[in-house]
Amino acid sequence: MSDIQTIALDAMGGDFGPSVVVPAAGLARKELGAAVRFLFFGDETRIAPYLEADPALRAVSTIHHTDKIVSGADKPSVAIRSSKGTSMRLALEAVRDGAAQSVVSGGNTGALMALSKMVLKCLPGIHRPAIASIIPTESRDSVMLDLGANLVCDEEMLVQFAILGAVYARAVSGIESPTVGLLNIGTEEMKGHDEIRNAAAILSSVKFPGRYHGFVEGNDIPKGTVDVVVTDGFTGNVALKVAEGVANLSGHLLRGALKSNPLAMCGALLASGALRRMKQRFDPRFYNGGMFLGLDGICVKSHGCMDVYGFSRAILVAAHLVEQGYNKRVADEIAHVMEQESFVSGERV
Amino acid sequence: MSDIQTIALDAMGGDFGPSVVVPAAGLARKELGAAVRFLFFGDETRIAPYLEADPALRAVSTIHHTDKIVSGADKPSVAIRSSKGTSMRLALEAVRDGAAQSVVSGGNTGALMALSKMVLKCLPGIHRPAIASIIPTESRDSVMLDLGANLVCDEEMLVQFAILGAVYARAVSGIESPTVGLLNIGTEEMKGHDEIRNAAAILSSVKFPGRYHGFVEGNDIPKGTVDVVVTDGFTGNVALKVAEGVANLSGHLLRGALKSNPLAMCGALLASGALRRMKQRFDPRFYNGGMFLGLDGICVKSHGCMDVYGFSRAILVAAHLVEQGYNKRVADEIAHVMEQESFVSGERV
Repeated sequence: MSDIQTIALDAMGGDFGPSVVVPAAGLARKELGAAVRFLFFGDETRIAPYLEADPALRAVSTIHHTDKIVSGADKPSVAIRSSKGTSMRLALEAVRDGAAQSVVSGGNTGALMALSKMVLKCLPGIHRPAIASIIPTESRDSVMLDLGANLVCDEEMLVQFAILGAVYARAVSGIESPTVGLLNIGTEEMKGHDEIRNAAAILSSVKFPGRYHGFVEGNDIPKGTVDVVVTDGFTGNVALKVAEGVANLSGHLLRGALKSNPLAMCGALLASGALRRMKQRFDPRFYNGGMFLGLDGICVKSHGCMDVYGFSRAILVAAHLVEQGYNKRVADEIAHVMEQESFVSGERV
Repeated sequence: MSDIQTIALDAMGGDFGPSVVVPAAGLARKELGAAVRFLFFGDETRIAPYLEADPALRAVSTIHHTDKIVSGADKPSVAIRSSKGTSMRLALEAVRDGAAQSVVSGGNTGALMALSKMVLKCLPGIHRPAIASIIPTESRDSVMLDLGANLVCDEEMLVQFAILGAVYARAVSGIESPTVGLLNIGTEEMKGHDEIRNAAAILSSVKFPGRYHGFVEGNDIPKGTVDVVVTDGFTGNVALKVAEGVANLSGHLLRGALKSNPLAMCGALLASGALRRMKQRFDPRFYNGGMFLGLDGICVKSHGCMDVYGFSRAILVAAHLVEQGYNKRVADEIAHVMEQESFVSGERV
């Protein structure tokens, strides 16, 4: 791989389109230095003014004009049928064709997942991609997946997610052997669905690039009990949104309490530095960027509602994974695990 | 029903046994006034000293001695086989035999669910009981179920949980027509499993003692978007524990931030009244008491780790449901809903 990487950006995705995506690329460029180029896909008349405002960014950027976009409300099947020439699909095709090494979009999640599977395909041996995200915890950051791509998961999918997540955690955090837990309703061996107990049996016996910790419960996620939390896409999506919702509510109540009377307001003023640092530690913008793991190409989804700083974090996630050679590593690991006798289907049935 | 109600207590359940259960009954008695009697099941030599310390409680209490207990670690099937004469089973049998109107235990949840189904049986028409709890939100309190009794739920179970939850919300909060939401990964109609979309179709068409709101997402739980959140036992258990975990972490971080430097400590001192009120609003002890809905008898599960105040709250949940005639009401509503044509199996398939 050359030292200069190219990132394809769906400039029309997300709630704010080019007004967020272009300045976010400018911010990411400063962070990454000279070793990056950007391809913007979307409406040139809306993209160009933001590029003009940042000559350094403009010098490393190319606009690929299209009027077509994927609607935020489309069902994935509808989005696929009418996707030809849309900004989202062109950005994905740039990765497929080698013009870029990664793609970032803030568009419709279901459509992006369906299109990225169609355009980029899965890595050899992977049944289904998963959405992963980095989440803040009481100790170091964790990785959680699947966050909504697969509502029902069999044991092989859960095992593959464990491997995808472990290699991802190693790439982003540098932990040599990340601990992996399966999300369950109790930590005893007999707890949970058949699928989850079978996945536990496989992970206990195969060699993979992480250490299998065992079952974890919902409260282990904020505790940071393991480096990688593996679950099906339904449970993961609900768990992530509950966590975000409770964190928001806590902040809201705290602000309310500290404004409730003059004494509390004085207290808040004195403690403001400490409170601000606590807020920064859990800033959802810092953790923006859902990685689609298992695809033959790097595709990162930004929250649609993100501002410039938040979207720039998603771009940095993509850039970092390219730097780390994530896809080559995960493909090697998956092939290695699936060759092991204890993973061959039928052995366990 | 007579005006005096009798509550059966498994004195040996929970981490602390009679040292918590007996004083908790004393606290609940003060709250409830004279209109209550208690039956304590367990080791008389361990129960009696705590009763001696509270003559008013002793005057309304009877001890039923047994040496046998259900172990906290037993699988439900094992617990059932060796349950004869245990404090948990005797307490349940007291409700079955009419000696008490409700039972409260802090013992092994799986064993309590299995034993209560065996001893009390389900209400007519109910397929499976569910565990419900009241949860604090940004607006008024909500009810969430199932919290772990049924890992996989078909559409009829989800519909029954909606009815059980709506009647429960009405009984505990007095809301005439509680709003009911199905927990999903998005609010659009096409989202989620078949089971959940079928349940949505049924709830949209039948008359039941609440208003069907539609799908809700994880972040709607702390927001309090609906009065009753319905989900399967796996997702509900994870969601509840994530919420508790994030709330604990927020409190922990806040305490850390406010101790991080002298200025912050002064601020915390000034704001201490407001911060204490915020903490009280979300005190998990106040919300203790998982109600087993759908049984022909009132059975409430306390967290095993609860202190005297927390356990007394679970006793009050039981007492309140007896006062409200919950079981008779829910049996009538279930019968009424299941008579409706749109609920007859086969119509929807």
